[in-house]
Amino acid sequence: MTDYILSEATRAKYKRISTASIATQLYKRGLRNQFIQGVVPVSPKLETMVGQAFTLRYIPAREDRNGLEVFRNADHPQRVAVETCPPGHVLVMDARKDASAATAGSILVTRMAIRGCAGIVTDGGLRDATGIGQLDMPAFYSRPSAPTNLTKHEALDINVPIACGDVAVFPGDVLVGDNDGVMVIPAHLAEEIAEVCAGMEAFEAFVLEEVLAGAPIIGLYPCTKDENEKKFEEWHQKR
Amino acid sequence: MTDYILSEATRAKYKRISTASIATQLYKRGLRNQFIQGVVPVSPKLETMVGQAFTLRYIPAREDRNGLEVFRNADHPQRVAVETCPPGHVLVMDARKDASAATAGSILVTRMAIRGCAGIVTDGGLRDATGIGQLDMPAFYSRPSAPTNLTKHEALDINVPIACGDVAVFPGDVLVGDNDGVMVIPAHLAEEIAEVCAGMEAFEAFVLEEVLAGAPIIGLYPCTKDENEKKFEEWHQKR
Amino acid sequence: MTDYILSEATRAKYKRISTASIATQLYKRGLRNQFIQGVVPVSPKLETMVGQAFTLRYIPAREDRNGLEVFRNADHPQRVAVETCPPGHVLVMDARKDASAATAGSILVTRMAIRGCAGIVTDGGLRDATGIGQLDMPAFYSRPSAPTNLTKHEALDINVPIACGDVAVFPGDVLVGDNDGVMVIPAHLAEEIAEVCAGMEAFEAFVLEEVLAGAPIIGLYPCTKDENEKKFEEWHQKR
Amino acid sequence: MTDYILSEATRAKYKRISTASIATQLYKRGLRNQFIQGVVPVSPKLETMVGQAFTLRYIPAREDRNGLEVFRNADHPQRVAVETCPPGHVLVMDARKDASAATAGSILVTRMAIRGCAGIVTDGGLRDATGIGQLDMPAFYSRPSAPTNLTKHEALDINVPIACGDVAVFPGDVLVGDNDGVMVIPAHLAEEIAEVCAGMEAFEAFVLEEVLAGAPIIGLYPCTKDENEKKFEEWHQKR
Amino acid sequence: MTDYILSEATRAKYKRISTASIATQLYKRGLRNQFIQGVVPVSPKLETMVGQAFTLRYIPAREDRNGLEVFRNADHPQRVAVETCPPGHVLVMDARKDASAATAGSILVTRMAIRGCAGIVTDGGLRDATGIGQLDMPAFYSRPSAPTNLTKHEALDINVPIACGDVAVFPGDVLVGDNDGVMVIPAHLAEEIAEVCAGMEAFEAFVLEEVLAGAPIIGLYPCTKDENEKKFEEWHQKR
Amino acid sequence: MTDYILSEATRAKYKRISTASIATQLYKRGLRNQFIQGVVPVSPKLETMVGQAFTLRYIPAREDRNGLEVFRNADHPQRVAVETCPPGHVLVMDARKDASAATAGSILVTRMAIRGCAGIVTDGGLRDATGIGQLDMPAFYSRPSAPTNLTKHEALDINVPIACGDVAVFPGDVLVGDNDGVMVIPAHLAEEIAEVCAGMEAFEAFVLEEVLAGAPIIGLYPCTKDENEKKFEEWHQKR
Repeated sequence: MTDYILSEATRAKYKRISTASIATQLYKRGLRNQFIQGVVPVSPKLETMVGQAFTLRYIPAREDRNGLEVFRNADHPQRVAVETCPPGHVLVMDARKDASAATAGSILVTRMAIRGCAGIVTDGGLRDATGIGQLDMPAFYSRPSAPTNLTKHEALDINVPIACGDVAVFPGDVLVGDNDGVMVIPAHLAEEIAEVCAGMEAFEAFVLEEVLAGAPIIGLYPCTKDENEKKFEEWHQKR
Repeated sequence: MTDYILSEATRAKYKRISTASIATQLYKRGLRNQFIQGVVPVSPKLETMVGQAFTLRYIPAREDRNGLEVFRNADHPQRVAVETCPPGHVLVMDARKDASAATAGSILVTRMAIRGCAGIVTDGGLRDATGIGQLDMPAFYSRPSAPTNLTKHEALDINVPIACGDVAVFPGDVLVGDNDGVMVIPAHLAEEIAEVCAGMEAFEAFVLEEVLAGAPIIGLYPCTKDENEKKFEEWHQKR
Repeated sequence: MTDYILSEATRAKYKRISTASIATQLYKRGLRNQFIQGVVPVSPKLETMVGQAFTLRYIPAREDRNGLEVFRNADHPQRVAVETCPPGHVLVMDARKDASAATAGSILVTRMAIRGCAGIVTDGGLRDATGIGQLDMPAFYSRPSAPTNLTKHEALDINVPIACGDVAVFPGDVLVGDNDGVMVIPAHLAEEIAEVCAGMEAFEAFVLEEVLAGAPIIGLYPCTKDENEKKFEEWHQKR
Repeated sequence: MTDYILSEATRAKYKRISTASIATQLYKRGLRNQFIQGVVPVSPKLETMVGQAFTLRYIPAREDRNGLEVFRNADHPQRVAVETCPPGHVLVMDARKDASAATAGSILVTRMAIRGCAGIVTDGGLRDATGIGQLDMPAFYSRPSAPTNLTKHEALDINVPIACGDVAVFPGDVLVGDNDGVMVIPAHLAEEIAEVCAGMEAFEAFVLEEVLAGAPIIGLYPCTKDENEKKFEEWHQKR
Repeated sequence: MTDYILSEATRAKYKRISTASIATQLYKRGLRNQFIQGVVPVSPKLETMVGQAFTLRYIPAREDRNGLEVFRNADHPQRVAVETCPPGHVLVMDARKDASAATAGSILVTRMAIRGCAGIVTDGGLRDATGIGQLDMPAFYSRPSAPTNLTKHEALDINVPIACGDVAVFPGDVLVGDNDGVMVIPAHLAEEIAEVCAGMEAFEAFVLEEVLAGAPIIGLYPCTKDENEKKFEEWHQKR
Repeated sequence: MTDYILSEATRAKYKRISTASIATQLYKRGLRNQFIQGVVPVSPKLETMVGQAFTLRYIPAREDRNGLEVFRNADHPQRVAVETCPPGHVLVMDARKDASAATAGSILVTRMAIRGCAGIVTDGGLRDATGIGQLDMPAFYSRPSAPTNLTKHEALDINVPIACGDVAVFPGDVLVGDNDGVMVIPAHLAEEIAEVCAGMEAFEAFVLEEVLAGAPIIGLYPCTKDENEKKFEEWHQKR
């Protein structure tokens, strides 16, 4: 759907950018709905999740199509997704915001981590969530849920555009996740947003120092006074 | 996905079968989740809606992909769906249960009626709902909603398996809709269910007559007394 | 639980009292939560529903306990409730506000009507809702729902205190239902509320006449001016 | 907040414009959230509701501030709103989408109708809803609700900006309501939207005629073929 | 309701079994709805909660029946439940999923811990949740909630079948709770499920080792290749 | 709205009182709805939050009024609130329980902490939630949310009565927050509640000791046996 490839340089930039900054820049460009709603980290991580989207679409499970034996099929889309999501990519699952059943468990997620995937995001549940939280690879979900995915979800399509937490996710979009949650950056904006946000992060670090030193926010954040702009430039040069 | 074709004879049978009876028979076969939740008739109809599913999948609308100009594109999936849904079929839309915007309006639905479609079902909204309700062709929706579909929904795929009101709908499944709502009958069960339900409807007509004449329901509904079974057989032969 | 018996005289009074007036009087006595939330008439009726509560409690259905064959059991609590709810009483069902399945259908409700029951109230669904709406006996529900109750609900207890639409309903409480919905009047207050509300209804009829004739509401509703009180007394004597 | 005054000429235009058309034109101007969500007509009306907003804000009721005696106060904001909402205006109430209690009843709404108000819109409940539905003046609400407003809502402010059904409503904005629901048109756009939509309604009437005569929608709606544009012009001139 | 008694041997087995494994085995036996929805541990525990259900049913509190003085009654069902729930059992509360008020606080839960109960599960709130979380005895709830239970809940029945988080819970059922949440195992299946799951846990431990060593999941999980089965048998014998 | 000023002595009392105790005492006085629903600490704190309410009201954001440039305005109500909320006060925000966007971020909240405010409470989201959680000043919110407040919320009014989490909050009310959540104490009851609750806390400390020593709760909590009352008096004197 896109031939954009996230470079290591841009990935490195995003590692230091907050989802809050990305949200503001996308807002400025008219994109108001790129934050995956209702999704939290399985466990807090020090490092930010960054990677392009590889998607899996679930539909409601019909009982006669979702017996336990379907997993014996080597072509079952959930299993295929886990084995084919490229290293450095994030597996994003559309579970229609229904977390009454799981969409994956710790064995599958561990396999993804071993394969070098960058993360997993689902708007449904995850089972064995404690085990998943102990991995270095970040995972975002709605909540823990013990029932097997077959209870509610039939894995259907791989790498098609999906909905996740009310956001449109296209294969190849860049996902960035921190403790606030996950932002979806359309592939064609990924370079531009990384560039602009890197600058914002520096300015916000400066502002925070000023605020901790007692400065009022008006005229400083956003910067509407010349003296503050000048101060920032000096601060920036010293770093 | 299926090569089942609903015959006119089976369609005629379903025209006289209630969604309640279908639900009971599917339940008996282990299918508990075939009633489209949260969907009501735009206006009550005397005739039951019957037709095979032709589907349209929406994902959340991303602002930069959904300006009003997209409708100028002759390939826009919503427009194509309206023009290609076969006569006698039901257009079923997956709007992720989000009715804060419409999924179609009266002009498009009128076009479908003129083309001989059997109905339309959406788990989102419909605009110009009064106009839609005045058509003979039945329509089922969540609620009236004036905003254009572009506000929340991007039409993406035609005739793929979808979710509608928490039910899996596969292209070719048989949809039956009355004032209670809409049942989804898997294609491979369509003949069998029609057959069995036709018998149930006769029995229920008999029971209702008995009840109106003062009979208690225990032993009659379900029929566990021999005398009632005999009485029903006599009643049935007279008809 | 109560030995209160609703007399025909009090029933007749309630037939002319609105649920709004009852709500206000219960509010005055510290009872703020006696309106069954989320419940509407299956079809509008000219006559107000009045009757004492006879209750049925459902719990979630466990699949191995709720095959279709349970209805063959003459002791099945739902069937027993339909046959034993006394004439003049209202069958009130606790379905945990889950309307994704029915709690009764038109045959059972017709049986209740034939038996002289005063109505049925459920915070779940009803199937064959059109048929139920055509009966003279009023019915209140959350929404139409084709699936059999066994799909989600196991009938368990008869005539125990229950929750219905977030309200506590004790057997013997008086239920009054009009187009606004259903109020639950604790048995020990039933006489007092009927008495006071009858007076309120007269006053509101007077106020409405005044308002239609152009009177402002301040000083009139509630009546804080002596002249309005006097006017009402004259109006009342003429009737 | 605005000194815009809706002229009788513009009001007349809006009387013939659907909320669906208004939604599309506001969408084109970047306003995606002007449809009051979750609000329906108390009863369908042949005539469209048109009027400028006069607002009332409720906050949650604290028990010690909201005894029945507060209505005896001539300054109670709800009563004042009913007596001061100007003729031709629409009273819009912010009830925080909580319809578990009423925000007005038939006596107050009748008084507004007598005073010449253009309508009432609340995202909460209305009591005596049947009586309100029988008035000529249109009313929009979430659902019928018997409990007095004091149960949940304390009337606080008159004619301040509010939220109603998730939409910002500023005093003086133009509200248009039909069977789909209610659109909020910012005052500064009211003339422009009326003008453009009047044209759209004519075009849609033409399209509907064409569709009923068998025309496909692609190339016609929106109009991307020259021949259709020409046809419309001819149609328009004949009228 | 059941005369099943959980033996210490079976309890010990369940201590090493995950709720995910139990969910899969119940799913295999047609039980899809045994995971208590919307319930989380008050604080994570290393040890799994295991015990038979002892139940308490709440209905909505009516203001005139639930003054603070009711707790002075030695027969108040909540207090009685806390004092009579047998050691080794789990107190399960039906609060109709309403967590706007508490269902117990730290003093009562501490008393249960001292008495040797195995845990507490409520689909409502708990107050003094920090204190409860510090106990060794596990507790599961919807969320912290400071208001006394009397605000919303009247304790009514002890040891009757209830709903908890949309699951049917019968007295004597076995509850197993870990960080994913709580599974309800029907008493008549308790032995069988313990037996089968113990085997599954061993296999999953083997699979996890294989995955960490780089093995792909297809053919391994579930095990569809002979070589993997053989490998597992060897692994199992070595342990 | 009130001229009550929280003294340092009363503040000190509240620092040792739990929200659970306050809820019980307000319940006793007829106030059942003073617990802010749906709000949790951003991070657990050892110290209880205590302070008088300073309020900020948001309404839904209209796109044409909420470009990023509005923050350049020194009078933007959100920025003004952050700079003018008095030291020792709690900033309470009405975000209509919509957490799909933030209501503040870590820079603004840090500024408040530096200014000596006592805390912040919002029924919406907060961005940079990790940074906010690391401050000593307590913060309560619905959940983390990266999108800027402009996405959904327009800051409108300062220090007017508002709704927060379904509770009425008047400027000057006393807010007390611990790990269970936040209670709102009407200003005119602040002294009385502090006094009574201080006594309750002592009694509960005694009860907990007794319970840990094996005492049953009946007759002890609440205290209905003379011997327990006597025992408490002795315990209290020793402290």
